[in-house]
Amino acid sequence: MNREEVFNYAAGPSVLPVPVLETAASELLNYRGTGMSVMEMSHRSKVYLDIFNETKQKFRDALGVPESHEILFLQGGGSLQFSMIPLNFSAPGDSVDYAVTGRFAGIAADEAERYCTVRRVYDGASTNFAHIPTQEELDLDPRAKYFYYCSNNTVMGTSWKYVPDTHGVHICCDMSSEILSHPVDVAKFGLIFAGAQKNMAPAGLTMVIVDRALCGYERDITPLMLSYQRQINKDSMYNTPPCYNIYILGLVLDWLKTMGGVTGMEKFKHERAAIVYNYLDESKLFKPCAEVESRSDMNVTFRTGDKALDAEFAAFAQERGLLNLKGHRSVGGMRASLYNAMPMEGAVKLVEVMKEFEASHV
Amino acid sequence: MNREEVFNYAAGPSVLPVPVLETAASELLNYRGTGMSVMEMSHRSKVYLDIFNETKQKFRDALGVPESHEILFLQGGGSLQFSMIPLNFSAPGDSVDYAVTGRFAGIAADEAERYCTVRRVYDGASTNFAHIPTQEELDLDPRAKYFYYCSNNTVMGTSWKYVPDTHGVHICCDMSSEILSHPVDVAKFGLIFAGAQKNMAPAGLTMVIVDRALCGYERDITPLMLSYQRQINKDSMYNTPPCYNIYILGLVLDWLKTMGGVTGMEKFKHERAAIVYNYLDESKLFKPCAEVESRSDMNVTFRTGDKALDAEFAAFAQERGLLNLKGHRSVGGMRASLYNAMPMEGAVKLVEVMKEFEASHV
Repeated sequence: MNREEVFNYAAGPSVLPVPVLETAASELLNYRGTGMSVMEMSHRSKVYLDIFNETKQKFRDALGVPESHEILFLQGGGSLQFSMIPLNFSAPGDSVDYAVTGRFAGIAADEAERYCTVRRVYDGASTNFAHIPTQEELDLDPRAKYFYYCSNNTVMGTSWKYVPDTHGVHICCDMSSEILSHPVDVAKFGLIFAGAQKNMAPAGLTMVIVDRALCGYERDITPLMLSYQRQINKDSMYNTPPCYNIYILGLVLDWLKTMGGVTGMEKFKHERAAIVYNYLDESKLFKPCAEVESRSDMNVTFRTGDKALDAEFAAFAQERGLLNLKGHRSVGGMRASLYNAMPMEGAVKLVEVMKEFEASHV
Repeated sequence: MNREEVFNYAAGPSVLPVPVLETAASELLNYRGTGMSVMEMSHRSKVYLDIFNETKQKFRDALGVPESHEILFLQGGGSLQFSMIPLNFSAPGDSVDYAVTGRFAGIAADEAERYCTVRRVYDGASTNFAHIPTQEELDLDPRAKYFYYCSNNTVMGTSWKYVPDTHGVHICCDMSSEILSHPVDVAKFGLIFAGAQKNMAPAGLTMVIVDRALCGYERDITPLMLSYQRQINKDSMYNTPPCYNIYILGLVLDWLKTMGGVTGMEKFKHERAAIVYNYLDESKLFKPCAEVESRSDMNVTFRTGDKALDAEFAAFAQERGLLNLKGHRSVGGMRASLYNAMPMEGAVKLVEVMKEFEASHV
């Protein structure tokens, strides 16, 4: 199949902008007359350091990261952050607050529990994670060492529409599946992290934005690679970073700028998701999974209520070039991930195919 | 410059085979009719799992990894292995043996010291790391929990020509800068690890080969991502692996096969390095740094003995398209890394340019 015949709704790794892939392909054997691929460059060479530093600056500009916060290019994905956060920001016996609004926030809380006392200040299990709590529903501890939440929950397709007021308790946030899709007031956060493989770059790069003032207090047992302070001291080059992924991120940030940056992307993602949600609200066959107020623009989840029919639809869609619509294995149903690089046509086409399927099944 | 005008002697990330880059470029926007880039594929999709499983099998075949040993695709580089090894293979109070034959073995020993008692069974500092110890020079402890060494030392350009006899003590080995360059009797090792960015793939992938029988005893404080057992249980997909790097590794393994595999590569690397060493042994200007018996075929180090002249040569070579010949910042001089993908012409051309420089400076 040609790329034009396919829409890829994978939850991550996921679709990248075509102009980014075109540039990457054209530069793959010879980056701008250097005679080398970016994959082959020493991370300490001037040509690569220019790519690295420019990408860092573009990221800072795109998200408006204040100078108080360091930008780190790490490895290990969100799952490694689940350990790094308690190891760097808590001491044994400390109490920390976690809002469990989805699968990955739950795993993060479990991992933190191995190092300190975890209060689950909200647990969405009773609503099957279809609901994002209001400020009033959060049972926050003013003495917590930090408050943790996941701003967009990929599995159930929910997102937080506000940053909780924690009365000064530092906020750590997993933004993996929505980073760079809308403006963020970074100063409100102690730490933001995001795996690259949804809105940014190929898997293997983890972006961390961290308030420098919080670093340097990691536990003695913390592996050196997992110390934020050490990574800050070495500007993410304590060892070789995932150089090629960082290069692709730079290209994605160039593309993002042509799309109007995070402000342009916010408008775009609302419109794109609305195309699907508007249809789902009318459909007699498909039902959206998340509560209306909690819906994510990045991951739209829906189901027929019949497992066999869900599977039939996923296969029906796949035959038409609509790939990876199957929901996460832990919940079933369908999930259409509409990340930054998904064109508007991806939402239009999805609704078209859902309508076609519905017409023959109602 | 064109690729043909350049030789890249970087110590890592470093040169990749041209056919690999050509295939990667041609498949970058559309992998074999899927309509997707490998960068965009869900790591749980069939098309990607096929790439993953085939690459794993090719790696097992290339190195002859016995079924007793698991192959893991991890992140974090050698530096993260420096922590994972003691966290997984030792308990507090245990004693472990480290042979310090270079910079990175030293850093590994320092990191292990944070978790257990480290005996430095050999320390090359007195010879400025120009020497690799013989079996007799190793002060091994039969009760050590494991013995650790780095088989090729990138900074000083030395390599071990034998696997030490430890009388049953498990061996952990950093093979980052020589893996897949010669046959290895993997059964002799408890664990082998290697960062991908020298002989295998772009930076961001760390290969680990580990004896399953040794796993499952990690300490309570070990972050879940850093447990070998957990990574084995999840077949390196506890979270999203560095998918694209794994794909490139698969292409490199295809290329390696056309070169006669690790046996062909061993012959090739001896011949390639000999071209440079033979000249160095005759040169009146350049002196090799490593002892003859300890010389590495992967990293050839040399100097004039005059810092200004070293710098002059590096600049002279760079003007002629010979890139990244400057030695590691900790030792100075020059280093020509001749990894698997370096063609024979890279050694020939280097000697040509050295001769030219020598002719005008002696």
